[in-house]
Amino acid sequence: MERHPARERFVSCWREIRAVQSAEQVLEWDQETYMPAAGAEARARTLATLAGIKHARLTAPELSEAVATLASESQAEWQAQAREARRHIRRAAGIPRRLAEELAQAASAGLAAWEEARRQRSFAGFAAPLERLVGLKKEQAAALADGGNPYDALLDEFEPGATEVGLLPLFDRLRARLVPLVQAVAERPPVDESSARGDFPLADQRALGAWVAERIGFDFTAGRLDRSSHPFCLGVDRRDVRLTWRGQENDFRPALMGILHEAGHGLYEQGLPEAWSGTPLGEPASTAIHESQSRLWENMVGRGRPFWRWLLPHLRERFPQHDAALEDLWPALHAIRPSLIRVEADEATYHLHILVRFELERALFAGQLAVGDLPHAWDELYERNLGLRPRDAAEGVLQDLHWAMGAFGYFPTYTLGTMASVQLFAAARRALGGLDEPLASGEFAPLLDWLRREVHTRGALLEPAELLREATGEALSPAPLLEYLEAVAGEVYGVRLQGGNE
Amino acid sequence: MERHPARERFVSCWREIRAVQSAEQVLEWDQETYMPAAGAEARARTLATLAGIKHARLTAPELSEAVATLASESQAEWQAQAREARRHIRRAAGIPRRLAEELAQAASAGLAAWEEARRQRSFAGFAAPLERLVGLKKEQAAALADGGNPYDALLDEFEPGATEVGLLPLFDRLRARLVPLVQAVAERPPVDESSARGDFPLADQRALGAWVAERIGFDFTAGRLDRSSHPFCLGVDRRDVRLTWRGQENDFRPALMGILHEAGHGLYEQGLPEAWSGTPLGEPASTAIHESQSRLWENMVGRGRPFWRWLLPHLRERFPQHDAALEDLWPALHAIRPSLIRVEADEATYHLHILVRFELERALFAGQLAVGDLPHAWDELYERNLGLRPRDAAEGVLQDLHWAMGAFGYFPTYTLGTMASVQLFAAARRALGGLDEPLASGEFAPLLDWLRREVHTRGALLEPAELLREATGEALSPAPLLEYLEAVAGEVYGVRLQGGNE
Repeated sequence: MERHPARERFVSCWREIRAVQSAEQVLEWDQETYMPAAGAEARARTLATLAGIKHARLTAPELSEAVATLASESQAEWQAQAREARRHIRRAAGIPRRLAEELAQAASAGLAAWEEARRQRSFAGFAAPLERLVGLKKEQAAALADGGNPYDALLDEFEPGATEVGLLPLFDRLRARLVPLVQAVAERPPVDESSARGDFPLADQRALGAWVAERIGFDFTAGRLDRSSHPFCLGVDRRDVRLTWRGQENDFRPALMGILHEAGHGLYEQGLPEAWSGTPLGEPASTAIHESQSRLWENMVGRGRPFWRWLLPHLRERFPQHDAALEDLWPALHAIRPSLIRVEADEATYHLHILVRFELERALFAGQLAVGDLPHAWDELYERNLGLRPRDAAEGVLQDLHWAMGAFGYFPTYTLGTMASVQLFAAARRALGGLDEPLASGEFAPLLDWLRREVHTRGALLEPAELLREATGEALSPAPLLEYLEAVAGEVYGVRLQGGNE
Repeated sequence: MERHPARERFVSCWREIRAVQSAEQVLEWDQETYMPAAGAEARARTLATLAGIKHARLTAPELSEAVATLASESQAEWQAQAREARRHIRRAAGIPRRLAEELAQAASAGLAAWEEARRQRSFAGFAAPLERLVGLKKEQAAALADGGNPYDALLDEFEPGATEVGLLPLFDRLRARLVPLVQAVAERPPVDESSARGDFPLADQRALGAWVAERIGFDFTAGRLDRSSHPFCLGVDRRDVRLTWRGQENDFRPALMGILHEAGHGLYEQGLPEAWSGTPLGEPASTAIHESQSRLWENMVGRGRPFWRWLLPHLRERFPQHDAALEDLWPALHAIRPSLIRVEADEATYHLHILVRFELERALFAGQLAVGDLPHAWDELYERNLGLRPRDAAEGVLQDLHWAMGAFGYFPTYTLGTMASVQLFAAARRALGGLDEPLASGEFAPLLDWLRREVHTRGALLEPAELLREATGEALSPAPLLEYLEAVAGEVYGVRLQGGNE
């Protein structure tokens, strides 16, 4: 076998960086699942130390030299390795190590303060930690933006290449058709959701969710499912993927759809290319592409009639006293009803929640909004966009953990990913000559295989836009998502919208 | 306030080392509790990377310079900081970074291989990983012993200052009186243990154990209790202390006594000096001193009549169908009966289990025993020392996780710690003018306060022998343990032994 000393040197440098990151991920997972509350202070210190170590490794001359020697590689894989490595190095080298450590410390402390503030349902105790975190993020964004738009530097962490001016037209087009849709639905009688309600012991909901996750392809010998106050998926390694969930005893939807969502993320992590494990190409393409996978399984598969033809008998088996018919349940899965909590929102109003956050974080980083004014601004925007006002901060500004851990610029990727999920599902359907039959008989392998081939095993080889174009033949667009939502709303609520000219 | 730049520099160096170690500890805890099996390979890589980073930090010139500047300190605390720091630095600097990384990798891989071999109840799959680990440990021991006894270099990791020639007389004295005791008991009719048997759902056993741990003083806001295949206690931080347990449905003793044992360890960790947190003095004095705390709560408190006067009504409340009287239960808590599994052994034959391991690991590192011959040698020694032969490796050589993670030289500290526990309990009783009354009324604070003052809050200020002498006025000795065991055996079995001349 031919030896490639330059490649080997690069891979060995990067494996160490990835190992430190794996440690960070276990520590973050642990903080959200099992860590005793009093451990928060030490945890923040530990994460700061690891962030400092990672910063030192990413900015070490050996790594830059190893990356430079890859420049002469003609293979696309190694060019992509160098591209991705340079992106990570640029983000690290753009800030001092001290700031990297402080950011990690403030993010971990922010999470702990958020948990406590949420328990107390009051923003007060969270204001100072968030203020500190936003200050540090501003410092980071300014350093990375180098005179450009600081918010773009934040977006770039999650979505390489994304910019505020690039996203605004997409979100404007979405808003322009989504708001009339939600208004039209609001004038109709509400959907009867009783077929999704009842008495569902949480242990049984977990068992059902885990079983469904396994059936769609999630490998539990290389993964887990735990409780947390905010559901998430975290890939410590492609063979160690952690999902979390939460549920409601009187409604099976939040747990089941949530687990499907996180399992969609988990399938992506488990499907990342083994050969590139521990290198930049072994990572997901972007946060939006990640979200496309969770949304695809949650919405495109998990709210579809074929899937429920298969699942309904199993649901009945698990909850014998619950005997809903598909024709009653399907509308309940597509009820559109403005609500206060993003992660429990329906598939249409969900994006109104994102628009609130997108607007607020842009204002924060443009210096037009102070942290102390955030709760009020939040409540105002909810009233304006969703017609509802949170009763307290727990169902308002404190509901998400993202800002508490310094993840500004993350929320827009939820909507971008949802757009992509509709496009990818349509492409898979075309490529496979239909999907209804396999899904209705619980055969998920054809779809998963297609996703493995077109998305998962490509890792970070292609930039997100390129990946989407290769897989679907299209650029990212809100139109397919809007058409899907309008079609569903038409069927459930009988509304007819002329959105055809999007 | 006076500033001490040298101290501050030292503390800041050490805090980073301790943070990396905290990360290692969470990763180790996770590996034994929640990590999916397939994650083992990545975990070993991550732990190797962290070990390399810790090695680099411990051998960095800045640290040695910071320690050197402490030499002029006149305060005992700072002299002790320097002493402990030098010990850790010496152990790190004595081996190359490559070896530190390989040891961590082999330990993590060893644990994973051990879990699997145990499941299969066969040594075969474990032989190669153990062989590799023993080879690396031999390399480490030879480098650290520097021409001296390699086994001493292993002991020193857990028990500073302990040597094979120093331990042998203690163990010989123990064996000389313990073997006749066990033999004398074997000639008597067995104790009726039915009062400890029955049907005890594991969830209820856990609830009882956790409640007892809390009552004796374990702070669950700064700690946890999880299931694992091998019970242990691990201090990520003094405010983040993790206990694990396992139990049997037909006997409440393994879970309850195991949780008391681990909670004893946990109380030590939670009681470590806050002011020295993150520095060498904030650590436990030694592994034997640690074990003295677990044994004290498990045996001296937890098998005593006063404790059971308090606990028995609560046991009945939790298990109403179980109605044992103290006069039946007390003998069952002190039954002496050779068995195959160390962690379930009674308080007398327990040390015969340790003697087997002590003999085998000395032979391994003296080059007198090959890894491949270990299972046979184990079975032979069990037959000779305990009169029992394991039916398979799972109840033989595979029962403990210590060797699988490279912890050679650890087992003797269990017996040393048990000796110390008897001496410390007697000293506490003398100092407090008796303990029966508070224990019988569930008042554990007087005893815990004494332990906090004499042991916990001293951290690593004193070396183990000195700590014991200050707390008890005595040197470590097997005599008090033997007298205790003989007294109990006399009462339970009516045997009379003339051990007075020890």
